[in-house]
Amino acid sequence: MKKHYRAIWMEENSVFMIEQNLLPFEYKIFEAKTCAETCVAIKTMLTRGAGSLGIAAGYAMAQAALEFQNSQNYSKNIEKALFDIESTRPTAQNLFVVAKRVFNAAKISPQNALREAQQAADDDAFCSEKIAEFGNSLIRDNSKIATHCNAGWLAFVDLGTALAPIYLANKEKKNIFVYVDETRPRSQGARLTAWELSQENIPHTIIPDNATGYLMSTGKIDLMIVGADRIAKNGDTANKIGTLEKAVLAKTFNIPFYVAAPTSTIDFSCETGRNIPIEERSEDEVLYQTGTDENGILRKIRVASPNSSAFNPAFDVTFAQFITGFITEKGIFPPSEIKNLEKF
Amino acid sequence: MKKHYRAIWMEENSVFMIEQNLLPFEYKIFEAKTCAETCVAIKTMLTRGAGSLGIAAGYAMAQAALEFQNSQNYSKNIEKALFDIESTRPTAQNLFVVAKRVFNAAKISPQNALREAQQAADDDAFCSEKIAEFGNSLIRDNSKIATHCNAGWLAFVDLGTALAPIYLANKEKKNIFVYVDETRPRSQGARLTAWELSQENIPHTIIPDNATGYLMSTGKIDLMIVGADRIAKNGDTANKIGTLEKAVLAKTFNIPFYVAAPTSTIDFSCETGRNIPIEERSEDEVLYQTGTDENGILRKIRVASPNSSAFNPAFDVTFAQFITGFITEKGIFPPSEIKNLEKF
Repeated sequence: MKKHYRAIWMEENSVFMIEQNLLPFEYKIFEAKTCAETCVAIKTMLTRGAGSLGIAAGYAMAQAALEFQNSQNYSKNIEKALFDIESTRPTAQNLFVVAKRVFNAAKISPQNALREAQQAADDDAFCSEKIAEFGNSLIRDNSKIATHCNAGWLAFVDLGTALAPIYLANKEKKNIFVYVDETRPRSQGARLTAWELSQENIPHTIIPDNATGYLMSTGKIDLMIVGADRIAKNGDTANKIGTLEKAVLAKTFNIPFYVAAPTSTIDFSCETGRNIPIEERSEDEVLYQTGTDENGILRKIRVASPNSSAFNPAFDVTFAQFITGFITEKGIFPPSEIKNLEKF
Repeated sequence: MKKHYRAIWMEENSVFMIEQNLLPFEYKIFEAKTCAETCVAIKTMLTRGAGSLGIAAGYAMAQAALEFQNSQNYSKNIEKALFDIESTRPTAQNLFVVAKRVFNAAKISPQNALREAQQAADDDAFCSEKIAEFGNSLIRDNSKIATHCNAGWLAFVDLGTALAPIYLANKEKKNIFVYVDETRPRSQGARLTAWELSQENIPHTIIPDNATGYLMSTGKIDLMIVGADRIAKNGDTANKIGTLEKAVLAKTFNIPFYVAAPTSTIDFSCETGRNIPIEERSEDEVLYQTGTDENGILRKIRVASPNSSAFNPAFDVTFAQFITGFITEKGIFPPSEIKNLEKF
């Protein structure tokens, strides 16, 4: 396991992050020198994933505090920066939680903000480890596990959430097999999760999102684990578009369906999933695809009919009734207990 | 409606077909001069779709009969040709039905085989018209209709099945909107259905397969209509991979889910869907995508992680319990009545 290694980190005034847009075709580190540059990186999904988004937002806030440390309008400027950071992407809860946490620390001093942002990253890594342990208890020898999108070490500063138990099970030499949902339109499954699993030599295969139901109906999947971008008080969960479909299918075919996420993903101010804002992204993400040609050159091609539009919601809400349980850093809980975790 | 126009036809000894592989980027007619060439066209999906596959198989059989008309081993040769045609693709029922029908006619004479193949194409067109009429009765003004894959006029010699009622509703000036499932991995929705609907100026948008559930759960879809490759006696239906997922979601969110298909798609020798063979195709269809670059040049790119494999089942079986009804040329029937249609 790549413990020595994080998907996003801060050194002096710069935020460094793996350019997830280029993976798996190119491995490159991007340096965002200013808060504004980090915001653009979040918006364009150069960095992505619930945990990484939170940490990026925290670092961006720390960058702003450092940038404005000699400004006369320090308070006003960091408030403006908080607004800018919160405007980057609307769905992931961690982005708001960490940005606010670092903003509060920044009120004392820029150095305090930086410490808080680093602490948030360490907290995230700690959560991944606990999620790995609790989730691993659900994985048996010979388990065939399905996952959607990417909630691995790219999506968090360390191990990840949905993939963390899989990494631990593999480390313990359990014989496992992972079905990786392609996860259109941005194909985070085919590009990022498959790439992560390859790096760890974990047996897996990519499947079209359309094939998960077929595999479930024919007894090929024992367990499904996904991540989460925001969890409402009643257990309704916003996650990558398609998660709802997989959860409904899992319920129909009696397959345990778990959401792995730190409790910081729970939005206790949100009564149900109906209140979670769903980001709509550019139709171009559906109509075009990027990848490498036979010479290894990265190209963008149109994969849809030329005169048609597309609709591209980035997330959906999986209703609590379709979720078996939540794997958190505090243990595994059924949806009905989410509301109690506020005072845990 | 393009009544003057068929996706596949035969003139003299050649079978002509729209090269569906190239659509929507290029519109080209392929001429298969021999039975062997038509078989390759079927295998490589140059022509595709339940109805078109049937007609292609019938024409291929007629070609074989004509090719061997002066052969001393006429009977043996046409039997061998039947075997070759039946070996092209395993799931679509119409392929087997029409090949056998024309084979039986070929026993009398090659000219009789040709007549029978042409008759089969005309029968297919007649079925499309009746399906359009019956299906149109389910479409209200302002209906928002979802469809999966392509069961339009490219998939049949005329109007199609799932799209036939939509074409008729549009002709009658009903205000309709179509959500087109992209239909990975081959994207027949984004490429063929969207293209067909554009040609007819029918309002539509392409959605990732992952988004259908989200739209259903938020009340955006009133009705879903799909085609079928083979229907078992109990109503279980094999169709493009992902159909099962959509049907389960439709049932969960109380959305009527119809299968549109001629009764020739019913395999009365098949008790349940468990007996329908499911074709597995090359993993390359998942790992690579083709499309046009900014200069209009058709390119093939890798869209998945370089060291991962893919699993690519082309069809799935939707269990009868998830299907509201079947729109056939004989009327609309619930799954429980499929078995009675043998003697209809």
